[in-house]
Amino acid sequence: MAVTLIINPGSSSKKYFLVTDGRVIASFRFERNEQQFEMCREENGLQKICEGISSEQYGTALRQVLDSALRSGTITNLSDITRVGVRIVAPGTYFQAHRVIDEAYLVILRGQEGSAPLHIPPTVREIDQLRLELPEALIVGVSDSAFHTTLPTHARTFAILAEDSSLFDLYRFGYHGLSCTSVVRRLPAWLPATARRVIVCHLGSGMSMTALLDGVSIDTTMGFGPGSGLMMGARTGDIEPGLLLELMRVKNLGLFDAQTYLQTQGGFVGLTGESDFRHLLERYAQGDEMVKAAFLQCVYQFQKTVGSFTVALGGLDAIVLTATAAERSSALRTILLEGLEWLGVTLDQERNEEVVSQDGFITTATATVPVLVLRTDELGELLATTLSFQSQHN
Amino acid sequence: MAVTLIINPGSSSKKYFLVTDGRVIASFRFERNEQQFEMCREENGLQKICEGISSEQYGTALRQVLDSALRSGTITNLSDITRVGVRIVAPGTYFQAHRVIDEAYLVILRGQEGSAPLHIPPTVREIDQLRLELPEALIVGVSDSAFHTTLPTHARTFAILAEDSSLFDLYRFGYHGLSCTSVVRRLPAWLPATARRVIVCHLGSGMSMTALLDGVSIDTTMGFGPGSGLMMGARTGDIEPGLLLELMRVKNLGLFDAQTYLQTQGGFVGLTGESDFRHLLERYAQGDEMVKAAFLQCVYQFQKTVGSFTVALGGLDAIVLTATAAERSSALRTILLEGLEWLGVTLDQERNEEVVSQDGFITTATATVPVLVLRTDELGELLATTLSFQSQHN
Repeated sequence: MAVTLIINPGSSSKKYFLVTDGRVIASFRFERNEQQFEMCREENGLQKICEGISSEQYGTALRQVLDSALRSGTITNLSDITRVGVRIVAPGTYFQAHRVIDEAYLVILRGQEGSAPLHIPPTVREIDQLRLELPEALIVGVSDSAFHTTLPTHARTFAILAEDSSLFDLYRFGYHGLSCTSVVRRLPAWLPATARRVIVCHLGSGMSMTALLDGVSIDTTMGFGPGSGLMMGARTGDIEPGLLLELMRVKNLGLFDAQTYLQTQGGFVGLTGESDFRHLLERYAQGDEMVKAAFLQCVYQFQKTVGSFTVALGGLDAIVLTATAAERSSALRTILLEGLEWLGVTLDQERNEEVVSQDGFITTATATVPVLVLRTDELGELLATTLSFQSQHN
Repeated sequence: MAVTLIINPGSSSKKYFLVTDGRVIASFRFERNEQQFEMCREENGLQKICEGISSEQYGTALRQVLDSALRSGTITNLSDITRVGVRIVAPGTYFQAHRVIDEAYLVILRGQEGSAPLHIPPTVREIDQLRLELPEALIVGVSDSAFHTTLPTHARTFAILAEDSSLFDLYRFGYHGLSCTSVVRRLPAWLPATARRVIVCHLGSGMSMTALLDGVSIDTTMGFGPGSGLMMGARTGDIEPGLLLELMRVKNLGLFDAQTYLQTQGGFVGLTGESDFRHLLERYAQGDEMVKAAFLQCVYQFQKTVGSFTVALGGLDAIVLTATAAERSSALRTILLEGLEWLGVTLDQERNEEVVSQDGFITTATATVPVLVLRTDELGELLATTLSFQSQHN
């Protein structure tokens, strides 16, 4: 039995999937919320089981997954797992390609730890564990930035010293590339080929927007690291660099503290103390003024980006909303799109209520800029990319 | 004779004007270009005289001005100067108002030196010299941010910890407010009252854009400090905060070095080694690829901001271009507005060539979004504001 293990390490969760013949035979989700840790698993078509775990168990999630799969008989031996695909979120031109993870890859990834101290070290630990537990498996690093290699120079380059950009590899790499790829793959089924100018909005705990011209990324809100662009659940997004210097000065923050601040004390957490969109939307519905102000700010950034990307694209043919928050919450979608009727975005409230955790249009049939909800399929992209690599052991 | 002295200290120049009865009787301009210093003066209606000066003379510019004015007979005694207006560019809610500069003001301004180490210390030194040289004069701090106090909360607030914003006074203050005020004052002469949604673009060595609804600022690209927003001659503008941390890490920069980098190694300097728009436009015309790429990036940011502000305003009725680079260069204006025809911006090349250092429309009569060039009048605003204060000595 040839089983593929897919690992999707996020900022506050880790997801594991065991797949054979294109079928998910087991899935595991580890979540971290402040000091709470939880693991949920679904194996052999049985019901989902969730349980609290310790931070140590969260740290050794891979071991929990393999143990559970062996115990339940999902796999017979660890050697059943012949391939592993890991989503890689790391700044660097090198990491803008999908690659087999070998010793050279790990050396380069470790060398980048300082540039993303909250994201890369856990991924390195994950890969180290993988190589110990599954020494025979082919491990593929699936890039979350590869989709954005098409950015033109004027969007990819920062207005800093040109020699610093090239010497230190400082460019807009962009993220949520797997999500974008999965959307682009399904666009032809929903939009005519004449709909060339599309904005894809990935709205989960991470949030980004990407401008697509003929399915190709020409600009994206995330830049060098995944904390940039729009304000998010806990990330500041693009606050001005001088403001960061002022924060470091008055709060006496070093580089690591500043990085942590940007990633964990910003966005909705900073403005309201909370990052969970379900809770936030409840408080919004109850008229919580602080939460309403935070949403107003979030919506304002979202709508301004619709405007800037529309100019970048020379017009706009459709908006696609994807990822958990956008897929599940019709309330969030209503807030985000309110007031854009003059742009041709006319919400159909009935459709909007219907389209929950499924694909479909949520605008009226006559809207000149249709808005489409498409479920993201990062897992499908991770799997397809992982399987596309020839095993060196064959 | 009651003379008013107006001081406009810029990032790479200092301008002094002696005014009586609304008439400029002498003007002095000190410029710094890398290691070169120059002073130009025009007194008593005589021809402008320029000469090289030492860095010490640049530092004691006020002394040079007063000596020259006494020597030429422009003033008879220093006590002729009864009022002084100084443009104040400093982050802080306190500095978003025009105020008489007294001991308390100076204490607060000195307290902010760390937040704008390149801008505030020279202003403090200027005021210290003023108080020594002209102990009897009323000194008014004319705020370059006062115009932007109308920003709504969602535009004024950054997505950082709310308690940090209020405790450390970290907000979008905006700059080029005097320039915007001078534009708004003259708009009714050029646009009908129905033209409610206007974008003002100040394009000098500093560059900013402001969204005006009924003449009131609702958003602006500059934020906490004047190095933010668009890329400029030598400033990076809003590069992502994580990129700044990476620069600090790999180049081992401290807070002051990082601030200096943002203000002097970015924008056109970073990308091409040069910040002078006359030279840059010459190189552009000669087909210099590096310069063309830098302009493409600058234009891209400009046009994206037109898009985002258009959405913020709910539509767009006119664009106003002001400040040196925009007023003088029809070539720059052509580059900036190219490709915006679909938005209703249709340049009239003949008009565009004609309108140089004067006011006028540069779009066709049928353009749905007319573009107007208006000469900025920061001096007029500085003077009017300074004279509006009641002297405490009267």
